[in-house]
Amino acid sequence: MKENDLIRNLRARVTDPSGVTGIGDDCCVWTPGGPTCLSVDAIVEGRHFRSEDEPALVGRKAAGAALSDLAAMGARPVGAVVALSCPARWNGEAVMAGLIAELERHGCPLLGGDTTASDQLVVSVTVWGERASARFLVRSGAGPGDLLIVTGPLGGSLASGRHLRPEPRFAEGQWLADQPYAHAMMDLSDGLAADAPKLAQASGCGCLLLPQDVPVHPDVAQMSDGAKAACCDGEDYELLVAVSAEHWPNLQLAWPFPRPLSRVGWLLDQPGAFIEDRQGRVVPMTWTGFEHRT
Amino acid sequence: MKENDLIRNLRARVTDPSGVTGIGDDCCVWTPGGPTCLSVDAIVEGRHFRSEDEPALVGRKAAGAALSDLAAMGARPVGAVVALSCPARWNGEAVMAGLIAELERHGCPLLGGDTTASDQLVVSVTVWGERASARFLVRSGAGPGDLLIVTGPLGGSLASGRHLRPEPRFAEGQWLADQPYAHAMMDLSDGLAADAPKLAQASGCGCLLLPQDVPVHPDVAQMSDGAKAACCDGEDYELLVAVSAEHWPNLQLAWPFPRPLSRVGWLLDQPGAFIEDRQGRVVPMTWTGFEHRT
Repeated sequence: MKENDLIRNLRARVTDPSGVTGIGDDCCVWTPGGPTCLSVDAIVEGRHFRSEDEPALVGRKAAGAALSDLAAMGARPVGAVVALSCPARWNGEAVMAGLIAELERHGCPLLGGDTTASDQLVVSVTVWGERASARFLVRSGAGPGDLLIVTGPLGGSLASGRHLRPEPRFAEGQWLADQPYAHAMMDLSDGLAADAPKLAQASGCGCLLLPQDVPVHPDVAQMSDGAKAACCDGEDYELLVAVSAEHWPNLQLAWPFPRPLSRVGWLLDQPGAFIEDRQGRVVPMTWTGFEHRT
Repeated sequence: MKENDLIRNLRARVTDPSGVTGIGDDCCVWTPGGPTCLSVDAIVEGRHFRSEDEPALVGRKAAGAALSDLAAMGARPVGAVVALSCPARWNGEAVMAGLIAELERHGCPLLGGDTTASDQLVVSVTVWGERASARFLVRSGAGPGDLLIVTGPLGGSLASGRHLRPEPRFAEGQWLADQPYAHAMMDLSDGLAADAPKLAQASGCGCLLLPQDVPVHPDVAQMSDGAKAACCDGEDYELLVAVSAEHWPNLQLAWPFPRPLSRVGWLLDQPGAFIEDRQGRVVPMTWTGFEHRT
């Protein structure tokens, strides 16, 4: 298919919100309602999905992974654009159908795109959003002594194929951004072992993880080291939140969602990443989490 | 290089504008000053540049081509994010250095990014901007009888390598958006023969091109059909503008830039694309312009 045909088909498939100009001009145009947050996320064939995966699921993953970054700010989505680099052996329309359906499920209009031919499927999604409450909850607002909390069980996402269906935690993220006792937030894409140190560092802290307390997802194979899988597997797209230790019980009591909140560690006043091992000793963390390498 | 290293290096290389949060969180955050326009543009190894091209020039092209879409709205740039899918055989840091330098040349801060490994270099750049004057100048505002104008000579961009150094026409675009007699605008990326019908169609018109009046770029080889090259070669990144025919002399008199404005055609009240041939006859246009095919 020629590029312009795909763009024409996309235009027929989406409806612009009132007052917004979407696909079909050099740029889309909208009028922001206030402070705006934006993120870009690309997924690459052979790294983030396999050549034999369903095209619609690949599109769904590209949209869901990008939206998860908005959820992790406590934002609500406003718009998205996509750059699709698509080989002839992939059904680009099916990729886009899955992507658009996932955006629509979260109330996010597709407002633009660029399609190019390529040898390898790459789907790059830019999403932006606005505050759902009084603030965005960033990574840098936490301090030593804050507890680290996650919004669900972790691990087994890649092996089980769950990674193709990331679930952006919009409701939970927006609620948490509204709680004064929540100090920092991010989404878990590279694994707790890799991501917790990033949140800690952004807040000028170190961190201590409690692997025995990390809830293990049922997707983790029975025979494997569950705690390590939960810390290192990656692509969970749950929220990691730093909360005031003192008010942690209040937060638990007020938490209105069915997903359990779990305490998985602490922020420290000294740099570095540590874990409490099975014997209760605090030792430097040697796990690196999941990282797609060049 | 590991992804996180590249992101860390990028963060050290750029400075966030006051009040803006850039690289390092799940999203960048800024406070828009009003209506905002946004575009994404991806360039792919083997399609938009060659494997042996300079990495910094590839980065420059990715940024320049994306910024050209903002210039074509009469916008001024506010921010950019990049998704870099980069094989180990490419110097990703050099690509990013060229990209950042080009953004900075136009006063556009890099506010975020995502880097992934890949087999083929793909650079996807999202840029956004705000109005420089009272309005954005879109493609759909023109009508039958409007003249089609271009901001410079066309053709020879790919053969000469000029396509690696697109020059977003920000000053010209902003000035044109401020003129009431300019009715519609876009940038020329696929060639006048392909792009003029897009502007015409967005405005509910057809178009007639005057190939003998299209200024031919010195990059076009002496022995080739200059008029056809100027209409079909693509990747010129000049502006195509529809202006009131009646006020075209006023616009020429007021035009404050050294680049010549040239009249290259008309918008028609009937659909379709036509050219005036060398014998002065109006015939259906059979040229298709330049299109990267899947």
